[in-house]
Amino acid sequence: MPSVEIIAVGTELLLGQLVDTNTAYIAQRLAEAGIDVYGSAAIGDNRGRIAQAVRGALSRADGAIMTGGLGPTVDDLTRDGVCAALELDTELYAPALEQMEKTFTALGRPMRANNRKQAELPCGSTPLDNPNGTAPGFIAFARDGKFVACMPGVPREMKPMMTEKVLPFVRERLGSGNGIYTRVLHTIAIGESEIDHRIADLFRSCENPKIAVLAHDFRADVKIMAKAPSRERAEAMIAPLQAELERRLEGYVFGCDRGTPASAIHHLLQERKSMLAVAESFTGGRIAAALTSVAGSSESFAGGVVAYANSAKIALLGVASATLERAGAVSEEAAREMAAGARTRFGAELALATTGIAGPGGGSQEKPVGLGWLALDDARSGVLVRRLSLAGDRETIASRATTIALGMLWQHLALSP
Amino acid sequence: MPSVEIIAVGTELLLGQLVDTNTAYIAQRLAEAGIDVYGSAAIGDNRGRIAQAVRGALSRADGAIMTGGLGPTVDDLTRDGVCAALELDTELYAPALEQMEKTFTALGRPMRANNRKQAELPCGSTPLDNPNGTAPGFIAFARDGKFVACMPGVPREMKPMMTEKVLPFVRERLGSGNGIYTRVLHTIAIGESEIDHRIADLFRSCENPKIAVLAHDFRADVKIMAKAPSRERAEAMIAPLQAELERRLEGYVFGCDRGTPASAIHHLLQERKSMLAVAESFTGGRIAAALTSVAGSSESFAGGVVAYANSAKIALLGVASATLERAGAVSEEAAREMAAGARTRFGAELALATTGIAGPGGGSQEKPVGLGWLALDDARSGVLVRRLSLAGDRETIASRATTIALGMLWQHLALSP
Repeated sequence: MPSVEIIAVGTELLLGQLVDTNTAYIAQRLAEAGIDVYGSAAIGDNRGRIAQAVRGALSRADGAIMTGGLGPTVDDLTRDGVCAALELDTELYAPALEQMEKTFTALGRPMRANNRKQAELPCGSTPLDNPNGTAPGFIAFARDGKFVACMPGVPREMKPMMTEKVLPFVRERLGSGNGIYTRVLHTIAIGESEIDHRIADLFRSCENPKIAVLAHDFRADVKIMAKAPSRERAEAMIAPLQAELERRLEGYVFGCDRGTPASAIHHLLQERKSMLAVAESFTGGRIAAALTSVAGSSESFAGGVVAYANSAKIALLGVASATLERAGAVSEEAAREMAAGARTRFGAELALATTGIAGPGGGSQEKPVGLGWLALDDARSGVLVRRLSLAGDRETIASRATTIALGMLWQHLALSP
Repeated sequence: MPSVEIIAVGTELLLGQLVDTNTAYIAQRLAEAGIDVYGSAAIGDNRGRIAQAVRGALSRADGAIMTGGLGPTVDDLTRDGVCAALELDTELYAPALEQMEKTFTALGRPMRANNRKQAELPCGSTPLDNPNGTAPGFIAFARDGKFVACMPGVPREMKPMMTEKVLPFVRERLGSGNGIYTRVLHTIAIGESEIDHRIADLFRSCENPKIAVLAHDFRADVKIMAKAPSRERAEAMIAPLQAELERRLEGYVFGCDRGTPASAIHHLLQERKSMLAVAESFTGGRIAAALTSVAGSSESFAGGVVAYANSAKIALLGVASATLERAGAVSEEAAREMAAGARTRFGAELALATTGIAGPGGGSQEKPVGLGWLALDDARSGVLVRRLSLAGDRETIASRATTIALGMLWQHLALSP
């Protein structure tokens, strides 16, 4: 069986200052391609140890995939370590240097001499463009043809390089006939134990494809994994199980695979030809940020107000000061008026409002930290209101309220005619 | 120097289904105790590979600390692998069995025959109670006196076993009496290579305390690590180097240790007794979300408008429709008017505005994807404007613009009197 080992480089990993998420990401992509990973390692920024780890990995496996240590500083030693292990010199790759020069020009920052080092790659290697950063990656080759693919450690730079360049290369070299193909059903507004209750029998009976539930904070994914020689065969195996799961989880599955709550909301709003506005207090812009992460969201999202101060609730959303005095800013009435105000001011058909106490201060006996109100004002059907009582620290409360608000909005759009 | 290696066992780690956080936790405890970790590894549930990894670790280090693979099922093979590596048999540890029986009784669950296996430990080893689960841990010994400490993989069970049992053991055996103490200087608005250029000599000359640069997307941290017998001694070693670094990076260090750009901004605004408002187009609420993540931010942050549609820019921020027609929504003029509008409407002393094209659509020859404008309107000193030209996908562009905007705001507050 062809196999690969993964090596993460960085002293910060061995000091426990950073949790290595790159290895799991790479392992997952390789698993999907049906390529075995027998081991992974993390090592410090030390040339000798890097070389030793590379030699060890290549003695056991057909190739190694590395992350980290490609930067311009003196403690970025992956290049040197790989050269030592494979007994290679480096040479300057002009296209890599050119790309870096372009990036620096675009950033308006001077390119230092030490950046040039990043364009010096092991002789005979294949450079890998990095459109998301300055450090190019590369695939170096040992004399026996085994390979070492090196990528930056910044996840945002590593991920596209892995899926677009390293994975196709590894797949072509080592790919066996079978891959693992997955379908992920994203649910919202339903608990993990309720999902488990509804599908426990399928869990036990399904081997290929098999099912897993991945819990996130306040939402969960159901994953179907099929081992098959082609995507078509896998699709045929997945389809009936997917249909059965969607039937059992009806009203809770907002999307498939790459979907997010925000993209599902965007599509439903476009179908309705409706524009949405938001008025956020304790979610502080998180709902707007989620909605605007969808490409083309300007077609369904008019905008939002982050109304933290009472004066902003009055001036920008038209909340009555009498309401704020009588019921307070964290109240059903305030949430309703914020939603109505956002709908009117933005000229939108729907508006979603949030108000609450994210803490750690600001709570009282009567209105404790974690209390919140959501209001969804739909010109077609009226106002939906929901009271929240959330646990956690400030960031957790704001993030959970955001998830619940998006879930409420999605369910309303999906279920109302 | 005494050193230890960490080995995580579990096929799920190599399929990428689980991110290994145990290794970072263990590494951090060891670092604080001044014990070096030269490498870590993850391996699958395979007896031969586990034995190989243990032998490899003990050939390089004085001991190994392992997590996972201690359960009752047939694929829990850590015990067997360690016995194979150290050439030891197992024996039944009566106290471990008794403790397990108690735990099962307390849980009201029957104890199965395969659970007995968990009380069979390598001959001569020290058992480690597990009050939080059923699998006891143990410390086994090689003939040359090197050790292998094995703990369960469930973090809730592993953590107390690590701090209360394994760490005191390792500290007594290998501890030099020294711990590693760190100070992190957070920088913004300066590139990693520029930092390197300014401090490269310190990098090379400093051994204890030593320096590392950690790059994030569009900002970087400089870390000072001192090995010392006490926090007081470490502080005395760190202080002069910190002062020198702060001098060389003046105008770019926004905080220390736990600070974020948003918390630094919040403190500077409070010092000035100023309120801030934001008007966001292509950052879509991300700046507001960052600012409101700080506890107490309502004292410095009045609120914000996410003005996606032109109509919202006009209605909520008072941008002149003539400006939008003449110069377009992505223009210096529009950014200036958005900032001025936000400042007035929220009654704030400062306002920060962003407008730009996050893509993937909406770009043109003249105004490509990634073009953006920032405007910072300060009632005390006037308007600062900055043009952006950013690379990356939609999310990357929005996130980089957010970091740059926060950097610009922080620098303005920090440097203006």
